[in-house]
Amino acid sequence: MTELDRIFSDRIADVPRSFIREILKVAMDPGVISFAGGLPNRELFPVAALKDATARLFDDHGRDVLQYGSSEGHPGLREQISARYREKANLDVPVEDILITSGSQQGLDLLGKVILNDGDPVVIEEPGYLGAIQAFSMYRARFLPVPVSEEGMDVDALRAELAEHRPKLMYTVPNFQNPSGISYSEANRSELAQVLEGTQTLLIEDDPYGDLRFRGQPKSSFLKLLPEHTVLLGSFSKSLVPGLRLGWIVAPPPLMQKLLAAKQATDLHTSHFTQGIVHQYLRDNDPEAHIAVIREVYGRQCRAMQDAMREYFPPEVQATDPEGGMFLWAELPAGLTAMDLFQRAFEDKVVFVPGDPFYVRGSRHSTLRLNFSCADTETIFVGMERLGRAIHSLMDTASQSIAADGR
Amino acid sequence: MTELDRIFSDRIADVPRSFIREILKVAMDPGVISFAGGLPNRELFPVAALKDATARLFDDHGRDVLQYGSSEGHPGLREQISARYREKANLDVPVEDILITSGSQQGLDLLGKVILNDGDPVVIEEPGYLGAIQAFSMYRARFLPVPVSEEGMDVDALRAELAEHRPKLMYTVPNFQNPSGISYSEANRSELAQVLEGTQTLLIEDDPYGDLRFRGQPKSSFLKLLPEHTVLLGSFSKSLVPGLRLGWIVAPPPLMQKLLAAKQATDLHTSHFTQGIVHQYLRDNDPEAHIAVIREVYGRQCRAMQDAMREYFPPEVQATDPEGGMFLWAELPAGLTAMDLFQRAFEDKVVFVPGDPFYVRGSRHSTLRLNFSCADTETIFVGMERLGRAIHSLMDTASQSIAADGR
Repeated sequence: MTELDRIFSDRIADVPRSFIREILKVAMDPGVISFAGGLPNRELFPVAALKDATARLFDDHGRDVLQYGSSEGHPGLREQISARYREKANLDVPVEDILITSGSQQGLDLLGKVILNDGDPVVIEEPGYLGAIQAFSMYRARFLPVPVSEEGMDVDALRAELAEHRPKLMYTVPNFQNPSGISYSEANRSELAQVLEGTQTLLIEDDPYGDLRFRGQPKSSFLKLLPEHTVLLGSFSKSLVPGLRLGWIVAPPPLMQKLLAAKQATDLHTSHFTQGIVHQYLRDNDPEAHIAVIREVYGRQCRAMQDAMREYFPPEVQATDPEGGMFLWAELPAGLTAMDLFQRAFEDKVVFVPGDPFYVRGSRHSTLRLNFSCADTETIFVGMERLGRAIHSLMDTASQSIAADGR
Repeated sequence: MTELDRIFSDRIADVPRSFIREILKVAMDPGVISFAGGLPNRELFPVAALKDATARLFDDHGRDVLQYGSSEGHPGLREQISARYREKANLDVPVEDILITSGSQQGLDLLGKVILNDGDPVVIEEPGYLGAIQAFSMYRARFLPVPVSEEGMDVDALRAELAEHRPKLMYTVPNFQNPSGISYSEANRSELAQVLEGTQTLLIEDDPYGDLRFRGQPKSSFLKLLPEHTVLLGSFSKSLVPGLRLGWIVAPPPLMQKLLAAKQATDLHTSHFTQGIVHQYLRDNDPEAHIAVIREVYGRQCRAMQDAMREYFPPEVQATDPEGGMFLWAELPAGLTAMDLFQRAFEDKVVFVPGDPFYVRGSRHSTLRLNFSCADTETIFVGMERLGRAIHSLMDTASQSIAADGR
């Protein structure tokens, strides 16, 4: 292959390696407590119900769903998704506006494909979802990071980026964001909608965690506030199981036509077999009852992590206060980096994801992502105690080196 | 959405619409006999065996395969693929060189992604597989069509293109090609390998139909003849079922690393659930016996189509003589176009795919693709009789208009 070393495209050189992937390999060691993953809790998978639904699908529609299918997706499943938007969020989403994708990561790839030319500016949250950074990097996006906080996106910073760069795309996770766990407030959403009105910017509302709210009130979708400018991405990965690789895009007709052409060229269509399983599962079961259980468990585990943080962490460590989802975001005192903490914590057999991969600028950040969906409350306490010890130890080292510098 | 009309990428404008898709919609009419599709025969799907394998998978590994999985794919399935190459084709393919994809169409997308910059030249067979034209169009390939015939690819034409354009990629379907049904001879393969040796061109050997040989001897893979330059694409769509959307790429390590980064950015990974089903099916059943049945049926149906052609078509119509696969390719006498024939045949309730979408240059071609995998021999005779009538009628009209011109 030596002769072929130089055949690679320019775009592939731009894609950041997944540091998380490396960490997850490390976390496989059974003695290590991991807050690093972004996995839903496998103990909550409705395995028996999915098994029953699959058996029924084989009996009733086996040959149909094992054949090639339409690029748009399984008609019955698309209808169920449309009906749920109407019932749960009072959103009118026509079936024709729904394209089934192989997970919502594929939604990002398809949107990049049909919209981005080399170097096109894209607004991204800071910190932002690594998968979106990777997907849009493939289409050589130029990222415009805009900070997010507990209130939502920084409106002034966004206004400035829109005015200066006229980005085609703006990527957001307004509910329980990955990595930070923050949500956009109702007021922030309205302000952002006003700022975007009349621009040429398409807003991507990626909403994989929206169902996982364990406190507070649901907020308005941008599809309601700014229907002409919004593409909504949904997923069954967090509310059901990730292993079927099923998500969807809600997009208006002119965009949908392009997305369909891209979907065909990319993988023809997503499996109608796995779509048929979810369709049958949703018919035969009470999915809302199942989601309620997930919410209850994740809420309890999040509170356990917050309690443990108060008990074991130095008071200088700041953290977000999520209303749902799977992640909490902490910030170390100035001068400490999460990468240094990672080394120390790993020696004490606890891991997390340092904030660095979630930024498109800067390095040696002091923030870290903590996942609370996968460990039970007892394990969370043990792991947080270890992590607290590692932070104290890192602070001691830092203050000693400052003292030494002072001599 | 009016404001957003101009946000689309340049690449999406280049992708040809799938004319076949439109035809397939027409062919849904129950009275119409269709030779248009490219579907495997659903009557041959091993539904019961897949149902059993799935039930066992749920019982033994339910939570594992419903969770997120590795981007490379299911380890056991990759081992089975590697073992089969060793046993059936005497090919040494390390497990690490195998990436599971969501159908082999995704293999084309990933290869385009990691290799092509805008305007990069790509050798394509003439006529060539529409899905490959679509996939590489997305990365703005500049196509270099090289004719194929019953012997294989035109070696002189290829040599000229290589010398003039130094293409990065060359796309081939050496076994029972889609659309033409032709196969590259052993001599042709050796010659092509010699021509490619020492160039910077990567050969894609797309082999979805290789298992479906119903006569003649298996030919050497380019992976054997030209290992340093070959990427092999495989698929379970034709030998098992297409609805699970499972294929694979065989690529050497430096390319595999890039493909993995692209796979992650594209859809994280292919469902380990569907991979687990095939893994279990291959363990519990005799897949070779199943493939033997497919071969026998397709072979019989191909011969029926050839017999019907001799009986009903004017002798001026030329056709290929496939040794396997699902397609036959016919050429009308000079001056007749397959598009005109399509209109006339559709009125008589039989459809096929006119050759046009399989060419990247020219228009109003006189060739057509005929699929023989889906109709039983009786239906094939009825459909071919109708089609023969339509050809005769078109020839009559043409000779009358020539006679009229001559006056």
